[in-house]
Amino acid sequence: MLHNSTVDAQINHRSIRKFKDEVLNKEQLKTLYTVFQHTATSMFMQNASLLHVTDPEQKKKIQELGNQKYVGAEGDLFIFIVDLYRNQQIRQQLGKDDGRVHTTDIFFQAMEDTLLAFQNVANAVESMGLGYVPLGTVNDHPLEMLKTLNLPKFPVLGMQVGVPDQEPQLKPRLPLEYTCFEGSYKKDFDVKDLKDYDDVVTTYYDLRDANRRIDSFTKQITGKKLDNHETDRDQLPEELHKQGLCLDWK
Amino acid sequence: MLHNSTVDAQINHRSIRKFKDEVLNKEQLKTLYTVFQHTATSMFMQNASLLHVTDPEQKKKIQELGNQKYVGAEGDLFIFIVDLYRNQQIRQQLGKDDGRVHTTDIFFQAMEDTLLAFQNVANAVESMGLGYVPLGTVNDHPLEMLKTLNLPKFPVLGMQVGVPDQEPQLKPRLPLEYTCFEGSYKKDFDVKDLKDYDDVVTTYYDLRDANRRIDSFTKQITGKKLDNHETDRDQLPEELHKQGLCLDWK
Repeated sequence: MLHNSTVDAQINHRSIRKFKDEVLNKEQLKTLYTVFQHTATSMFMQNASLLHVTDPEQKKKIQELGNQKYVGAEGDLFIFIVDLYRNQQIRQQLGKDDGRVHTTDIFFQAMEDTLLAFQNVANAVESMGLGYVPLGTVNDHPLEMLKTLNLPKFPVLGMQVGVPDQEPQLKPRLPLEYTCFEGSYKKDFDVKDLKDYDDVVTTYYDLRDANRRIDSFTKQITGKKLDNHETDRDQLPEELHKQGLCLDWK
Repeated sequence: MLHNSTVDAQINHRSIRKFKDEVLNKEQLKTLYTVFQHTATSMFMQNASLLHVTDPEQKKKIQELGNQKYVGAEGDLFIFIVDLYRNQQIRQQLGKDDGRVHTTDIFFQAMEDTLLAFQNVANAVESMGLGYVPLGTVNDHPLEMLKTLNLPKFPVLGMQVGVPDQEPQLKPRLPLEYTCFEGSYKKDFDVKDLKDYDDVVTTYYDLRDANRRIDSFTKQITGKKLDNHETDRDQLPEELHKQGLCLDWK
C-alpha cells in the first residue's frame, strides 16, 4: 500500500485516554477550528457547530454523566453539535417558516456535516502529534446532557484532545474481506470464518491486560453491548423530538 | 495557525466533479480500504462497510437516480454503508436474538462509524493527490437505490474519487465565530451579522459563473433547499424501518 504522513497517521490511529497536564494553545485551537470549518457540507447548509467546553463545573458534570474519568480532565474537551438552530434562526428572522428543518432527511444531512467535521478535526489532531478519544458517552443520558451543555440542538459526539501520555497497542480490526467489497456486497456471511480474527482479538486482550477475561470479537457482539437492556440512551428519539428534529419519523 | 501537509490539504478542500479518465490502481484501493478499516469505531462494533461499485449497468442506474452525470463516470464510485447486517448475522448464527440492533441508539453509533470512515477515506484520497465529491444523492430515491445496490442495510453516502480534471475555487465558509464556540454556545444569533459573509458568498458565485443569479448564504437557506416540498428523500424513515433499523422511534 501507499504511504505518506497523513495515511501513516490514519492507519496507526489508536484512542488516547491518558493525556499530559497541558491544554491546547490558541494556535492549535485556531488550526482545529479552521479544519472544522472547511469540511465538506451537504447542500452548503453548514449544519455543524463545535463547542469547546472550558467551565470546570460543566466539565465535571459531563465527566459524571459519561462516567469516564479522563473526560474534561487533562487536555481539552470538545462537543460536536448537529446544529439546525442557526439555519432555523435565519429562516425565522427573515420571515420564513421552518420548512424542512424538522425532517429526518435534513437532520441526517446535518448529522453527516457534523460527523465528517469530527473526523476531519481528529485527523488534524493526530497530524499535530496530539491524540484524542471519541466520546459517545455524551448520549448516555441525553436529556440531562442537553441541559448541562445548554444547547439548542443535538450534541452527537464529544472528543477529548491532548498530548498523549500513553502508547496503547494498535487494536486489530476486521480483515478487509469482511468490510470492503469489490463489485458487490457479500450477503453470505458465515460467522465460522471469523475464527482466526477472534483469536487475534483474544491475543490482543491477553497482552493488554492479564486480568481481563478471555474476550473475542464475536463474544463481544453476542454479549451485553448488543443484548437487550434498559438504558437512558433510548431517550435519544425523545431528545431529538424535543429539539424539533426528525418529527416526520413514522 | 499551524501548517503541515495534512492540515494544508484539509483547509484547501474543494469538491471535484470532473475527473480524468483513469481508475484507481490496486495499491491505491488497498490504501483507502486500510484507512477505512482503521477508523475509530463505537464500542468496537465495527458497523461500517464499503462497496466499490464496478458494474457499468449498476453505475448507470446510480447516476440516473442521483441525476449527476459525473457519478459512476470517470474515476471510481464508492458507497458507504451503515452496516448492522454483519453483527446481526453474528448474533443470529450464534443463536442469540437481535438484541439492540433495532434501536435508534445502535443505529446512530453505526452511522457514526460509517461517517467517520467516510471522512477518513476522504482525507487519504486528498493526501494522495486525488480528489472526491460526496454523493448525498444516494438517498434521493432511497427505496429504489437499496434495490439497485442490493444491500441489506443503509447506504448513507456515496463518494466519487479520481484524478482531478478541474481546479475549482475555494468556497467561502461561515466565519468561525458562528460555528466554533469558546466556553458556551451563543444562542443570540442575529441574521443581520451575516451581511458581510453574504457579500463574500455572492462574490464567489459571481466570479464562478457569470450566468448564475446573484446568490448568498442566507438566500440559499431561506430558499428552496429548505422550503417545504415533495421529495422521495422523505422515504428515509420507511427505508430504515424496512431494514429493521430505528424501530423504537416514537
